[in-house]
Amino acid sequence: MLIRTLSTLECTKLLAANRFARLACAKEGQPYVVPLYYAHTDNHLYAFSMLGKKIDWMRSNPLVSVQVDERGPGRSWKSVVVDGRYEELPDRIGHKLQRDHAWALLSRHAEWWEPGALKPGAPSADLPHIFFRIFIADVSGREASES
Amino acid sequence: MLIRTLSTLECTKLLAANRFARLACAKEGQPYVVPLYYAHTDNHLYAFSMLGKKIDWMRSNPLVSVQVDERGPGRSWKSVVVDGRYEELPDRIGHKLQRDHAWALLSRHAEWWEPGALKPGAPSADLPHIFFRIFIADVSGREASES
Repeated sequence: MLIRTLSTLECTKLLAANRFARLACAKEGQPYVVPLYYAHTDNHLYAFSMLGKKIDWMRSNPLVSVQVDERGPGRSWKSVVVDGRYEELPDRIGHKLQRDHAWALLSRHAEWWEPGALKPGAPSADLPHIFFRIFIADVSGREASES
Repeated sequence: MLIRTLSTLECTKLLAANRFARLACAKEGQPYVVPLYYAHTDNHLYAFSMLGKKIDWMRSNPLVSVQVDERGPGRSWKSVVVDGRYEELPDRIGHKLQRDHAWALLSRHAEWWEPGALKPGAPSADLPHIFFRIFIADVSGREASES
């Protein structure tokens, strides 16, 4: 196996080509990692979530890490890690375009909302969905290939 | 989709049945999440790694989070999250049995060592491999099924 470092452009392409990631946040030194469906655009990852532990933690500490990988032919793989910053996007006019864009990207995939337990847009007055994005402060990646 | 909480026993079974996870550590509030191959036994996840960022960070803050998921039939899935504590196992007699056991479990899978870039056991005097385990302090999980 040959291991090499991915360029920033290669990392960005991998982020843009995928929608499933793992998101880690941290509180008082304890990390917490969960699956995340996202839409990549303009150096941000956009996502929706139910209220809960990860939103609580990211509100108190916006520093996050996001990891995405791809399997290639044979035993080859690529993995990208983002150092990011959580930014909540309240449902106001200023974010309507971004919300609609993320919704359009994510809703192409029937299963994207599953980790959030309920589909945003379905009636759920008691269960507000949070719209947020991760600003990509830094990105790095590796590729392993068999030749 | 029906979402339900997994019991501790169900979480443990899922951890035991898999070997590929995501590991998050944190330093000064910044999380860092990477892929991890592990072997589960006796309430611990055993793994090998090259020296590098994640080992440095876990040495300075042993609190970690580990996430494992499984896809089931259709759109069903299970996801388990571990709150854990990093424990390094130096290459001394006291850990030989654990090391041999983890090595035996992991080496059944041709690709397990790839995220570590080099296969432990291969000649690499300048690149020592760290043997460590994650103590499972707490575990939780969810399952989504279509009916």
